Amino acid sequence: MATEHKVNPSVSLYLNAACDLVAELENASKVNCSSVTVPIVHWNYEREFVREPLRSKHVQFTRSDLLLSSSQWLNRVICRIGDNLDLDSPIDCIRRQAERTIRQELSFAEHLVQNGYMYTRLTKRDCTNFARIVGCGATKGTLLVEVPLTNPKLTQNSWRRDMDGEADEEEDNPWHWWNTFRTHADSNAVIKVALELTADVPKQDEIYRWLGEPIDVIVVPANIFLTNAKNYPVLSKAHQSLLKQFYQTFCCHFILKANPADGHIAHYVDYIKHLIQQRFAKDPTQGYEDYAQTPLQPLYDNLDAMTYEVFENDPVKYIFYQNAIEQALLDRVPKEERDTKVSIIMVVGGGRGPLVRAALNASQTTGCKVKVYVIEKNPNAIVTLRAHINEVWQEGMVELISTDMREFNPPEKADILVSELLGSFGDNELSPECLDGAQKQLKEDGISIPCQSTSYINPCFASKVYNQVRTLERPAQAKDRVISSRHMEQMYVAYQKNVYHIDDPRELFVFVHPNKDSDPIDNNRYRTVRFRASLDCVMNGFTGYFDTVLYKDIVLSIHPFTHTKALASWFSMFIPLTDPVQLKKGDEITVHFWRCVASHKVWYEWCLSTPVVTHVHNIDGRGHPIWL
Amino acid sequence: MATEHKVNPSVSLYLNAACDLVAELENASKVNCSSVTVPIVHWNYEREFVREPLRSKHVQFTRSDLLLSSSQWLNRVICRIGDNLDLDSPIDCIRRQAERTIRQELSFAEHLVQNGYMYTRLTKRDCTNFARIVGCGATKGTLLVEVPLTNPKLTQNSWRRDMDGEADEEEDNPWHWWNTFRTHADSNAVIKVALELTADVPKQDEIYRWLGEPIDVIVVPANIFLTNAKNYPVLSKAHQSLLKQFYQTFCCHFILKANPADGHIAHYVDYIKHLIQQRFAKDPTQGYEDYAQTPLQPLYDNLDAMTYEVFENDPVKYIFYQNAIEQALLDRVPKEERDTKVSIIMVVGGGRGPLVRAALNASQTTGCKVKVYVIEKNPNAIVTLRAHINEVWQEGMVELISTDMREFNPPEKADILVSELLGSFGDNELSPECLDGAQKQLKEDGISIPCQSTSYINPCFASKVYNQVRTLERPAQAKDRVISSRHMEQMYVAYQKNVYHIDDPRELFVFVHPNKDSDPIDNNRYRTVRFRASLDCVMNGFTGYFDTVLYKDIVLSIHPFTHTKALASWFSMFIPLTDPVQLKKGDEITVHFWRCVASHKVWYEWCLSTPVVTHVHNIDGRGHPIWL
Repeated sequence: MATEHKVNPSVSLYLNAACDLVAELENASKVNCSSVTVPIVHWNYEREFVREPLRSKHVQFTRSDLLLSSSQWLNRVICRIGDNLDLDSPIDCIRRQAERTIRQELSFAEHLVQNGYMYTRLTKRDCTNFARIVGCGATKGTLLVEVPLTNPKLTQNSWRRDMDGEADEEEDNPWHWWNTFRTHADSNAVIKVALELTADVPKQDEIYRWLGEPIDVIVVPANIFLTNAKNYPVLSKAHQSLLKQFYQTFCCHFILKANPADGHIAHYVDYIKHLIQQRFAKDPTQGYEDYAQTPLQPLYDNLDAMTYEVFENDPVKYIFYQNAIEQALLDRVPKEERDTKVSIIMVVGGGRGPLVRAALNASQTTGCKVKVYVIEKNPNAIVTLRAHINEVWQEGMVELISTDMREFNPPEKADILVSELLGSFGDNELSPECLDGAQKQLKEDGISIPCQSTSYINPCFASKVYNQVRTLERPAQAKDRVISSRHMEQMYVAYQKNVYHIDDPRELFVFVHPNKDSDPIDNNRYRTVRFRASLDCVMNGFTGYFDTVLYKDIVLSIHPFTHTKALASWFSMFIPLTDPVQLKKGDEITVHFWRCVASHKVWYEWCLSTPVVTHVHNIDGRGHPIWL
Repeated sequence: MATEHKVNPSVSLYLNAACDLVAELENASKVNCSSVTVPIVHWNYEREFVREPLRSKHVQFTRSDLLLSSSQWLNRVICRIGDNLDLDSPIDCIRRQAERTIRQELSFAEHLVQNGYMYTRLTKRDCTNFARIVGCGATKGTLLVEVPLTNPKLTQNSWRRDMDGEADEEEDNPWHWWNTFRTHADSNAVIKVALELTADVPKQDEIYRWLGEPIDVIVVPANIFLTNAKNYPVLSKAHQSLLKQFYQTFCCHFILKANPADGHIAHYVDYIKHLIQQRFAKDPTQGYEDYAQTPLQPLYDNLDAMTYEVFENDPVKYIFYQNAIEQALLDRVPKEERDTKVSIIMVVGGGRGPLVRAALNASQTTGCKVKVYVIEKNPNAIVTLRAHINEVWQEGMVELISTDMREFNPPEKADILVSELLGSFGDNELSPECLDGAQKQLKEDGISIPCQSTSYINPCFASKVYNQVRTLERPAQAKDRVISSRHMEQMYVAYQKNVYHIDDPRELFVFVHPNKDSDPIDNNRYRTVRFRASLDCVMNGFTGYFDTVLYKDIVLSIHPFTHTKALASWFSMFIPLTDPVQLKKGDEITVHFWRCVASHKVWYEWCLSTPVVTHVHNIDGRGHPIWL
């Protein structure tokens, strides 16, 4: 059940200058701000650069660090660097002076804040030298980079009829400033965006594009506030929804830019907090957001008690299974035979028994007699199943088979074969191989539940998950098996929130059960899928989903357009590209995807052929073999 | 100031069997036990091994995992495996049956407890096959291995005059059981000791040997309790002090072995808690215990504000410095010249000014006039020093020189040169190289404070720090510099508590300042030091210390026999050996240590020549160069 929880967003007060830092901190507290964002340079001090030993007494560029304790520097001050500096000036002496200055500021900021925040501002796309020095140089804490949501210059121009050119407009979109900066800085993980709201609200597409970026702070300037009937400052509906959308995706912080003399500071701050604190439903998946996990391999590894417990607690999955079994029983057993005819149900991969329970429930609700065989290979789950048989389930109705379903020769064939072998990408837990092996247990006219599974992908940009994957030394389970350290050629399960979906998902591979297509059955697949970019953007991988038809119209889905309500067992898949690809609006993205089967493993391979040609990822399963 | 804090040790109740686990958990709660330690096998169930599909209904070896939630299994149950099994039996069929049984138990225990506890018991030194299967096989959670503190068989024999042989006695010491087990299991980090107290208390030497081992639990059997005058159970003074000593070193948990029908269970538990809860003085270094850190390189890296703050807060260091400067001033300036003669003090490596403050204080208390030059290379610390000069220190008394002390040509020479360039191993922050470079600033008869530093080492066994070092992928600062991943050939700073010191420390290298011995000065050193093992034991490295003479009899020391009271700036050094060395009582340990100097770096090399010959560690500084 959804419960409610309180959130407490932090708001920092942006000051153009701080003459007396201690006093400014006190004032900020009074207006409910937890910190101040101030230039690291004290305007009162001179700037001077001397190469040789410095002996002049008065040369000093900023305050002493002893003004605050190190924990105050860390928690209550965001140090701003590079105010009014142009590191990309065409004039050599200006650029050199700016370089010296910002290096001094960067060094002193790192001296002060440790793992805390630094702050700088991006004002144009031409920021190569700035990115080299600040973006590549930052190594400690978090560097916030302020970027406006829309380009103030373009906003002015849009009022003038004589200015034209949508192309220029996209080129000068501040997202491009950030993309240039980030790309030069090799997506340095310590750099985050401080996105500044503007009076103009861009198209929803452009906002979606920002949702893939590493936003940590929303900067709210006072001049976007309106005044309500009671003379209090409020935000427009559009700005309100923007603020909420960003907070829900990023749990971000806020920085308020206002004139301290304005008199309304506390009202702005309280308004922002009020807006965010409006109760959110607590998500049961909270805490998993954008956290990359290595997919389970339940065929190769035995699941443990905690993993079983998590999956058994899905609020809807087993209800759907029960409905599917009920429907299948009713379809197979004429009304007059329900008292006499015993339907054989085989649960293949029984785990600790949730599907057996669904089958027994279905028998009870339909009045159809059943005998259930439950086949399970994990000896630890057998203990639980045995206990159920001895203590709970009706004598003689359930028979336990402790073996691998692919090797079992049944004493009688099944009317209904029930399984739940699907992963986030459908067939990635090897349901085709398992069910092909088990289908000899099924009568010629028998029913497989599920009877079909389909995988889907779409191109995406996901900065947080991608950066985690990129910095992995090796897969989590590397100790247990022979796996190369090619962690960029592996799929990951992730609950993606910080993501931009570049195009809608398209179908990839379909598997049907029972499979009567060919003999021997061939589960190799190769498919080419095309997408299109509707905006300039970056792509660093694919999001994968699946849906499965249990029986007739009873479907479980994590496809975003058809997602089964409250279904919690599966997050989506993230499939990385080794190198991010810069896309232009209108670019066609052609992706090739293979599913490959060998005697002891299955794996996927993938690559792009347009708009750029990439190497084939995970050749021969070198990064991510799935063991049979 | 030392403050007091409450501790709350957890006690688990050891049960020979648990018929009804839920009821036993409730009973345990009633007697203040947070968990129970029970066999994973339910005595009620049969054991049977079947290779082929298991179809017989009643074959079941233990309870169902659904009896408790997974968080209860994790937090409230310690699963015991291998009760009454002999995996090293010479009789094949007994051994094979034991192997099958324990693999089943191990698998089911890992199924249940995830990151929690499993428990097994060591009963003899001949445990090779047991170690292979249980010790090497355990990969999840923590495996507690019960070992008695003394050998119950030897205790019996000691009462019989006809039994003799001290050699046998040492051979059969349970520490050897554990050492054999641990060595076979390659010191698997998930394995910890559950040390069971016995009625006999061994010699202090043997207890010290246990202090280096990974003890996580102390097992207290009820039969070691005495009864006091009020008929309550109490422990002897010797057992009390043992319990406290182990708790102070390990913050361990407790397991109580008692007959549930005894009626005194709650008294035993409360007594143990009471003993431990007697207030401990809170250690300012708490939280740093046995945590390996890469040593600072303040000459190469600029320290940051937080690091300066930590060191400036040492409660005694700067008082000692002030005393030393006072004494030196009084010795150099005759009483009649104190109003007129100005002594030149040079603080080399001034940081944010604590030594300047000590010098100014010394001037004030002695009435000697001084002029202080402060030389500092870190531009961020210069900001602080400049602020002090402008705002706090008396006009004209302090002159700031922003440069490297090795390059500074002073306008006048110093009477006293003050520095604090020492690391945990004395010269490891390159004080000899820095002070040799700075001593040209000193008058012919000038004084260096400090005037001497000496390093010391002793052989040791430290399981926790060693295991951390062993599992390091690469040094923490590898990103910043070209360092190989030879992390076993690097020194680490660590506050060692979980350590056994095999012999007393001996002197290694001495440096004197100013150094007038040779020209050019040679800071290379080579020294051979010998130690002796007083017990069979294992050695996995050296602990390093230093002391320094500031002036005459004013000394700072972290040598354990002369440690300056309350001095907090330095922990000891841990210097690992790539492979642990098994030592026999009486073995001579010969260690060779080099200090090597090249144009851009300094490094140490080390090796053993007896009782075994090891490779030379850190050749050419490949694992741990210290940059000049």
